[in-house]
Amino acid sequence: MSIVVQKYGGTSVADVDRIKRIAKRVKKSWKDGHQVVVVVSARAGVTNQLIERANAILKNPTEREMDVLMTCGEQETIALLALALHALDVPAVSRTGWQVEILTEGIHTKSRIREVKCGDIRKQLRAGKVVVVAGFQGINDEGDVTTFGRGGSDLSAIALAGALRARNCQIFTDVEGVFTADPRIVPDARKITAINYEEMLELASSGSKVMQTRAVEFAQKHNISFEVRSSFSNKSGTIVKKKVKSLEDTLVSGVAIDKNQVRLSITELPDRPGAAAAIFKVMSESGVVVDMIVQNVARNGKANLTFTVPSEDAFRAEKALKEHFKEKTSGKLGKSTNIAKVSVVGVGMRSHSGVASKFFEALANAGINMLMISTSEIKISVGVDPDQGDDATRVAHQAFDLG
Amino acid sequence: MSIVVQKYGGTSVADVDRIKRIAKRVKKSWKDGHQVVVVVSARAGVTNQLIERANAILKNPTEREMDVLMTCGEQETIALLALALHALDVPAVSRTGWQVEILTEGIHTKSRIREVKCGDIRKQLRAGKVVVVAGFQGINDEGDVTTFGRGGSDLSAIALAGALRARNCQIFTDVEGVFTADPRIVPDARKITAINYEEMLELASSGSKVMQTRAVEFAQKHNISFEVRSSFSNKSGTIVKKKVKSLEDTLVSGVAIDKNQVRLSITELPDRPGAAAAIFKVMSESGVVVDMIVQNVARNGKANLTFTVPSEDAFRAEKALKEHFKEKTSGKLGKSTNIAKVSVVGVGMRSHSGVASKFFEALANAGINMLMISTSEIKISVGVDPDQGDDATRVAHQAFDLG
Repeated sequence: MSIVVQKYGGTSVADVDRIKRIAKRVKKSWKDGHQVVVVVSARAGVTNQLIERANAILKNPTEREMDVLMTCGEQETIALLALALHALDVPAVSRTGWQVEILTEGIHTKSRIREVKCGDIRKQLRAGKVVVVAGFQGINDEGDVTTFGRGGSDLSAIALAGALRARNCQIFTDVEGVFTADPRIVPDARKITAINYEEMLELASSGSKVMQTRAVEFAQKHNISFEVRSSFSNKSGTIVKKKVKSLEDTLVSGVAIDKNQVRLSITELPDRPGAAAAIFKVMSESGVVVDMIVQNVARNGKANLTFTVPSEDAFRAEKALKEHFKEKTSGKLGKSTNIAKVSVVGVGMRSHSGVASKFFEALANAGINMLMISTSEIKISVGVDPDQGDDATRVAHQAFDLG
Repeated sequence: MSIVVQKYGGTSVADVDRIKRIAKRVKKSWKDGHQVVVVVSARAGVTNQLIERANAILKNPTEREMDVLMTCGEQETIALLALALHALDVPAVSRTGWQVEILTEGIHTKSRIREVKCGDIRKQLRAGKVVVVAGFQGINDEGDVTTFGRGGSDLSAIALAGALRARNCQIFTDVEGVFTADPRIVPDARKITAINYEEMLELASSGSKVMQTRAVEFAQKHNISFEVRSSFSNKSGTIVKKKVKSLEDTLVSGVAIDKNQVRLSITELPDRPGAAAAIFKVMSESGVVVDMIVQNVARNGKANLTFTVPSEDAFRAEKALKEHFKEKTSGKLGKSTNIAKVSVVGVGMRSHSGVASKFFEALANAGINMLMISTSEIKISVGVDPDQGDDATRVAHQAFDLG
């Protein structure tokens, strides 16, 4: 008997009818002889409703209590899906994050998985049961429930698949797989059949909303392959694994856009070792993920430092920086601006030069100004005006013949 | 420092504005120097919404999963109230039932409290924090969350007050205390200043919706006195304790009505020892609470047995009885009918005869037919046609000069 982990996101379990439909799909896998573990998110909209209520009480709600609040969403879904399976005569049992001992560490609302002990999942599977697990949540050493950030159910599914040595991990979502670009922006975008962790990671961290970045990182670190596929069709999706044999010698696999970035600028930073490091230590301690970083050459002993953070972290980042500068006096926080980040991603570019020039030239020809540039081994990202983000994506997709 | 346990029901925490108002009340007690533990229910309506969703999936939803589902309601409230306290600069921390180790046993949706270990409540109180605990829920030996039945947050509050040796236990509700009768039915009903456990228990079990019966039983067993009072006013409520000194020699303290009863009739039951016992064993094993019981004298070796159960248990009771008779063949289940139970309650009647005759005569004079009669040491209940329930209540209230 092989273990299959299936993850269904919020839109797939949005209401009672959809939950019933998912139950049928789960039953099919169970009938086929698999041992099935299902990881679910909160019903679409529920998490936002809970956050709205919290915000109506307190502008910046305490994160520990936000975790207590938000974990209700997934708990509702596991019970409803278990009931929907019972209605189809499938023996099923629900489990919360703390019941399957997903042990966490780190700050609330963005905790990390330390260990997955699985509780009694194996015992329940051996007894022929489908186990329905609440995604997005775990428990820390203090016995507090914690969450993994938006999209955290992906992480739950992949971590469970790894701990249970599952044959398959299927991430069911509202798109049919990973595309060369967002089909809503680029109509001729193609579904990618298989992709390796690195590319998937760069796409995910570059704004492709298909998967949570941390989930892909976790999969890469522990070599847990998975499939991204649609919960609304039976088509096969995109396999994400360690090595992908490519028939063509693809330079660029996809283009991603992230409109959810805020650029922070710091001026008058003393040009001495440790000044920039201190800034990023402050960000790290506040749990803010820093993305693109640009530092200019210093003039008159003062440097300018620019970096981007996800918009939801912007307030916290600014608050922490203001406190930091109050103590240190050296450095000044400028005005924050929204930015769109467009990235081309591909393992092929590792051994090929010329990708950057082709990308930048295409943007220039389209009259799109680059505000920031940042590169990794397999990715080139540019920050552009939010109004030009979609155009930049289409231009890049065409420049690399991805359609 | 004295510990105060306050319980707020669903209507008191129905929305964000009410939660903010409750936070102010809690802050006052905390400012007054008390160590405050707050027990809350789900926001009014939430539990019903969750049940509706479950019923849309499965007509008789599995009880273990219902417990997983319903406990979300209280979990939402504890987080929101903790946040509302934070907004008032009151250090507060929320705790679920399993976090404060309310250990339970028995069947799901109606579990019993085995032990209250309190988790780290004392430690948090010593640190100056208000602890906000989810009512209605605990955890059993299998690590499953369980619930205590409708109104179960009362039980949580009283059990915690006992375990913490609290100075006060205040049950805040949407009425101003315990009345001599439901003021919506009997306009001249009076608020009772103090009442003993036995009377409160009989009133609660006889349909006075103020408190959960099991909570009062628990208070009586462990001698935990408490106050029932309104969360919408500052008036003192009704104290419930072991002994109440009464100025007058009250025969009857109050009249209660329960419109939520179904009468089951069993005919052709063999007139031999154990036949009736077997029936009630079946009820008990199905977790059905049996209330009034009447058995007629046997004729031709066959007896008739009539008893009432709460309407929400009626389906389960009938199902269990049908299965029982399929196996045993001896006995036949008749048609079930709704019934209203009207009860007069008072410790005074223990040493006085004449209460029954006065009660029955008053009903007869009003033309109300008694369908069943059942008595305890301090209570006389009659079953009447549901349409005549309110009239019977008014008649009894007047007969014993309670106005």
